[in-house]
Amino acid sequence: MTDLKLVDAWWRAANYLSAGQIYLSGNPLLREPLRPGHIKPRLLGHWGTSPGLTFCYAHLNRIIRERDLNLIYVMGPGHGGPAAVAGAWLDGTYSEVYPGVSQDERGMARLFRQFSTPGGIPSHVAPETPGSIHEGGELGYSLAHAYGAAFDNPDLVVACIVGDGEAETGPLATSWHSTKFVDPVRDGAVLPILHLNGYKIANPTVLARIPEAELVSLLEGYGHKPYVVSGDDPMTMHEKMAATLDEAVSEIARIQAAAREGGSTGRAAWPMIILRTPKGWTGPREVDGVPVEGTWRAHQVPLSGVRDNPEHLAQLEEWLRSYRPEELFDDQGRPVAALREQVPAGDRRMSASPHANGGLLLKELDLPDFRRYAVEVASPGATSAEATRVLGGMLRDVITGNPRTFRVMGPDEVASNRLSDVFEVTDRVWAGEILPGDEHLAPRGRVMEVLSEHLCQGWLEGYLLTGRHGLFTTYEAFVHIVDAMFNQHAKWLKVTRGIPWRRPIASLTYLLSSHVWRQDHNGFTHQDPGFLDVVVNKKAEVVRVYLPPDANTLLSVMDHCLRSRDYVNVVVAGKQPAPAWLTMDQAVAHCTRGIGIWDFASSDQGAEPDVVMACAGDVPTLETLAAVDLLRRELPDLKVRVVNVVDLMRLMPDTEHPHGLTDRDYDALFTTGKPVIFAFHGYPWLIHRLTYRRNGHADLHVRGYKEEGTTTTPFDMVMLNDLDRFHLVMDVIDRVPGLAVRASHLRQKMADERLRLRAHTREHGEDAPEITGWTWPGEG
Amino acid sequence: MTDLKLVDAWWRAANYLSAGQIYLSGNPLLREPLRPGHIKPRLLGHWGTSPGLTFCYAHLNRIIRERDLNLIYVMGPGHGGPAAVAGAWLDGTYSEVYPGVSQDERGMARLFRQFSTPGGIPSHVAPETPGSIHEGGELGYSLAHAYGAAFDNPDLVVACIVGDGEAETGPLATSWHSTKFVDPVRDGAVLPILHLNGYKIANPTVLARIPEAELVSLLEGYGHKPYVVSGDDPMTMHEKMAATLDEAVSEIARIQAAAREGGSTGRAAWPMIILRTPKGWTGPREVDGVPVEGTWRAHQVPLSGVRDNPEHLAQLEEWLRSYRPEELFDDQGRPVAALREQVPAGDRRMSASPHANGGLLLKELDLPDFRRYAVEVASPGATSAEATRVLGGMLRDVITGNPRTFRVMGPDEVASNRLSDVFEVTDRVWAGEILPGDEHLAPRGRVMEVLSEHLCQGWLEGYLLTGRHGLFTTYEAFVHIVDAMFNQHAKWLKVTRGIPWRRPIASLTYLLSSHVWRQDHNGFTHQDPGFLDVVVNKKAEVVRVYLPPDANTLLSVMDHCLRSRDYVNVVVAGKQPAPAWLTMDQAVAHCTRGIGIWDFASSDQGAEPDVVMACAGDVPTLETLAAVDLLRRELPDLKVRVVNVVDLMRLMPDTEHPHGLTDRDYDALFTTGKPVIFAFHGYPWLIHRLTYRRNGHADLHVRGYKEEGTTTTPFDMVMLNDLDRFHLVMDVIDRVPGLAVRASHLRQKMADERLRLRAHTREHGEDAPEITGWTWPGEG
Repeated sequence: MTDLKLVDAWWRAANYLSAGQIYLSGNPLLREPLRPGHIKPRLLGHWGTSPGLTFCYAHLNRIIRERDLNLIYVMGPGHGGPAAVAGAWLDGTYSEVYPGVSQDERGMARLFRQFSTPGGIPSHVAPETPGSIHEGGELGYSLAHAYGAAFDNPDLVVACIVGDGEAETGPLATSWHSTKFVDPVRDGAVLPILHLNGYKIANPTVLARIPEAELVSLLEGYGHKPYVVSGDDPMTMHEKMAATLDEAVSEIARIQAAAREGGSTGRAAWPMIILRTPKGWTGPREVDGVPVEGTWRAHQVPLSGVRDNPEHLAQLEEWLRSYRPEELFDDQGRPVAALREQVPAGDRRMSASPHANGGLLLKELDLPDFRRYAVEVASPGATSAEATRVLGGMLRDVITGNPRTFRVMGPDEVASNRLSDVFEVTDRVWAGEILPGDEHLAPRGRVMEVLSEHLCQGWLEGYLLTGRHGLFTTYEAFVHIVDAMFNQHAKWLKVTRGIPWRRPIASLTYLLSSHVWRQDHNGFTHQDPGFLDVVVNKKAEVVRVYLPPDANTLLSVMDHCLRSRDYVNVVVAGKQPAPAWLTMDQAVAHCTRGIGIWDFASSDQGAEPDVVMACAGDVPTLETLAAVDLLRRELPDLKVRVVNVVDLMRLMPDTEHPHGLTDRDYDALFTTGKPVIFAFHGYPWLIHRLTYRRNGHADLHVRGYKEEGTTTTPFDMVMLNDLDRFHLVMDVIDRVPGLAVRASHLRQKMADERLRLRAHTREHGEDAPEITGWTWPGEG
Repeated sequence: MTDLKLVDAWWRAANYLSAGQIYLSGNPLLREPLRPGHIKPRLLGHWGTSPGLTFCYAHLNRIIRERDLNLIYVMGPGHGGPAAVAGAWLDGTYSEVYPGVSQDERGMARLFRQFSTPGGIPSHVAPETPGSIHEGGELGYSLAHAYGAAFDNPDLVVACIVGDGEAETGPLATSWHSTKFVDPVRDGAVLPILHLNGYKIANPTVLARIPEAELVSLLEGYGHKPYVVSGDDPMTMHEKMAATLDEAVSEIARIQAAAREGGSTGRAAWPMIILRTPKGWTGPREVDGVPVEGTWRAHQVPLSGVRDNPEHLAQLEEWLRSYRPEELFDDQGRPVAALREQVPAGDRRMSASPHANGGLLLKELDLPDFRRYAVEVASPGATSAEATRVLGGMLRDVITGNPRTFRVMGPDEVASNRLSDVFEVTDRVWAGEILPGDEHLAPRGRVMEVLSEHLCQGWLEGYLLTGRHGLFTTYEAFVHIVDAMFNQHAKWLKVTRGIPWRRPIASLTYLLSSHVWRQDHNGFTHQDPGFLDVVVNKKAEVVRVYLPPDANTLLSVMDHCLRSRDYVNVVVAGKQPAPAWLTMDQAVAHCTRGIGIWDFASSDQGAEPDVVMACAGDVPTLETLAAVDLLRRELPDLKVRVVNVVDLMRLMPDTEHPHGLTDRDYDALFTTGKPVIFAFHGYPWLIHRLTYRRNGHADLHVRGYKEEGTTTTPFDMVMLNDLDRFHLVMDVIDRVPGLAVRASHLRQKMADERLRLRAHTREHGEDAPEITGWTWPGEG
């Protein structure tokens, strides 16, 4: 058993380093009396949460060493940056990845100066922090990330400290139910530590102000066995924490052994720790006669105006010296041997764990040849296919080929999104009770379904960040639930691109189905294609948006996405029976280009067309081709070019996005002055936002979803939003010079026809008629 | 005590009507044998959840009548539409608001036909449903809505049925903690009914598959006293439910009496009911040899293909006849007297409660004259003010003037967003433990803070929907957390505009502060102005976006927002010290126009300018004016016009948004061909999306946030995103014809200057220098 005095010494060192980061620009070891000139000009940062984080760090170090544990540490509380950085510096890892911040006095000075300084490091645990898979900026996702990390890592323990602030968020409140989705045989364990320091920014926290019995009841209700560690006397707390941690880790080992060796199949009551300590523990008790330690006033900088307030300066010096830095760091400013001995070896250091830099562990997926699942397409549109159902076959074999490194997450919509073929080879993970009659539920499986988009996203992020692969399938409208999580993950990926030691991870791929245009019985609440607008706001190098128009293009796109790294891919696909337009070979060629002219539907034969009919998305593509079909019959001499867009980012200028077309290539597709009628899956202005710098933008006319919808037929939906085939023909007549007069009769006919067809489909609850009779060029 | 047989009869009637809505297009009373022609051509809808909802409806009716309760019913489960509509029709309310759907055979036939039919009504509880304040489309917000309805309604009981599907969502999981924010003296009570029917779409639910003791422990941990009602035999269940409901309502009365009369101040353990019944209860037990009742197969349409499958048709007839419609409806198809007697009187009917049509109860806010809080502005920019702090004074007096009808919600950021003056007159609501040293915490107050944006939004929505007023103040970046809730509320408002009997409610107003440009110690994770992009995608008639550039304009904007109805207002304002540009009178005039030329900063004196410098947002306005200041010194003969935009929607065409400028007015401000350099608060392409149809759009050059940020100084932030004053001057030089050559030296000077200033502010952690020396026109 390690001497707890040594644990305490390590803790004091980490606290010293945490406070130093907030305050000191010089005199890092306090070799001389503290003077105003040693204090940072602007005091930014958060002390309040740090001593709790370092306390756990110290104790986790001990148990890692004693039991040779494979353990990572997810720190949920906001603004825990100083603590995590202090730990990593004491581990030596910080200096390994940032040699300029060496493990000596000079490095310590740099460590202090860089914190919360312009161009320095953030006050949250961040991508820059070695050992982190979790940004402490926005709150609420720590526990979901921790479980994501633990899945399929049977030897890993993920210690996850949950702040009592973030514990109030919805995502965190439901994350506790992850206990019903963890498999003691094939997954690792999560050890949550609910840290009650009692306060948020300016308020107490809910969980700190309910009776302990109620809190214990809550956590038992979540499926845990809680252990309480509460107090403020350091050595007493060290004893309690060490004993509790020993017991909790032994309990985890017992649960896993019972399941792995004894075949125990019941759901375990996993241990968790309630750690109650004062906010700003070991910091100033009182400042200017007002209590600080143990109150919300310890949240940020407990002593302010230190440069100009000699009393505060003296108090700061007293506080910093209370850690006895002279015992902790040697003449060179290196941690003394007794501290270095506290540090686990090599990769066992939490800050050096390859699990927290998942790209190091990432293996390529063993992917089947996606061409194998191709839908036969004898002529364009001749085959009807449900695109996501076809994809389901491919995903089934991805699962078979990658039984421990690929998961599909979804909020109870894997079957609804018609990916059910995956259940031929796997089940849904379910550690709750299983009853006779349940289908495809099992203690282990590759599919995870819970009616929380937050949990799906959080689990998947944790899984990807630790070097695995996956897919999140959900309803298009409700993916907005995770807008903020997407934002944070995209920001994480953007930052990691500038951090050479962070290795690329698998992309986060969304498969959005049950989309805006096919909500027959759900209606207006389920109609929202605006996630794309959120996505394209993020840094161009990180985001990719695909709108495959049919089954074969979906296969090709998904193969590409599953091979990609460090992106967020958004794929929108239909689940309803719809025409397949391209053979597999054509689909591959089309998806490789991302955008292209569809010769079979075009009548410009390589010449300058009279009009360009562009489309992106399955339903808009269908309506466009139906419009073209009407045009070729009604106005056979009109030269029409059909351009289909799979990769939306191709529309952006090449200076703005790596996939962007050059102006020359764009002009070659869209012409520079001919009218372009663009039928788009989402809100129409997104296309304008992508193309406003392009030549001929004034002639670009976009149809899309304009927030009109209800419970109705697919045709009525496109009609309500003026995206229907007849309206597209009317747009052509209105915009091609000369047609307005020449084809005024046709315009009226289209107007009549759309009303007739609307009434018909509404009465019979039917879809619009399909368009047949296309042939490949050369066959006609 | 009501004869429970009568309750059962009412329940059978409601179930019959629910099933009828899903299946029948004719023969509504089953007066003749059921034939395929009586069946809808397309069977859409969800039976599974309906019988549980009607069961509660029946029992709530009973207790309302017996105790003359003022009670509304929030139905959380998705696709509960048939049940809610059935109840409202039996209440008579449905026929009152939709006279075409009369309470007779003809009306019943219409009731059946309109359901989930093109142009009919949705399968969710929806705005169209009398008695509803809660859309059952997206899931997870029912309980938050229920609490919002109960606040400041001391005589109201809000029964809230929570589906076990939605209970898995994060927002719902944390909503249970609302028990710590309800005041038994001045608030009403929420009676949650957790309905465990066991299944979602295709999966069991978490809460239905944990041991009952664990579930009880969870709900006790949330602060409740749970009562379990479990079973499937109707009459036994009626007895249990009636007794439990009696006890729960008595318990509520005891809690309230103890607090109101006895002065009890402890937090109560509020009752809640766990109702466990089979999914699709009373529907087909087995179909084609497979169990349906009590399984996920009862989720949607338990019997499919009824038109073509005689066996299913016979089974449907047997099922429908099992309710014995001949006992329930008279010759005219009216509910028999015994059913009508079950219905509470007048406004006591849940479907007729004015609380569920809040506009009926809405009273104007008693607002102070906002001019009273004006910041004195002797000359433009001469005064420095923290805009939100100034607003705090006004909000304090709004609170004083409206002590029971106005609340401020925020995730622990009311003080951080510098609205602290409100605490001069009110406190934060806190029913948890209060300790010595706590500030402004009390069992009642006007401010509600919990670290869950979901809960803040949900509470406020419930509060507004029941006819009160409020404000949601939060960090700009993290308002994305409620993107999906905003979407649903905006959709609700859009739909209600077409429902004449729904009366206008107070707008939902967001005050977004701690915005993207001032995140000095928070950094990249806290930088995201993209909520505006989400907002403008919603229907133009519903959304408003304001970017007041200083304190006085913020006052004027907020006064306007608090008086508005049926909108979502988004106000983005700074909290840091910043120049005040306009006097109060000028601010009022400017905000009334929403956009305008700032003469004091313009040098075009009514003539055609060489360049238009446009700006929206406080920081962009500062940088623009600083750029103009540089220009007037360096290029004194350049004619510059400064246009400031407060009301972003003014940029849209008048054909697209009610606030949109006509092209003529737009051209008068922006010219038709002069370069426009637009400094924008958010992502720059949003301005392009709003203006792409405008004349001169090719000459519009927008600077804004382009996802570059870190922990740094305010000046460094604008510089990283090319929004800084020097860059704006460089933009002018690059775009005004002739300047590129003439002012090439100045361009280089600006490039040098920005690097110098960046280095300076980064080294000293300082803001850029302020711009002084402006004068009002005529004074110079």
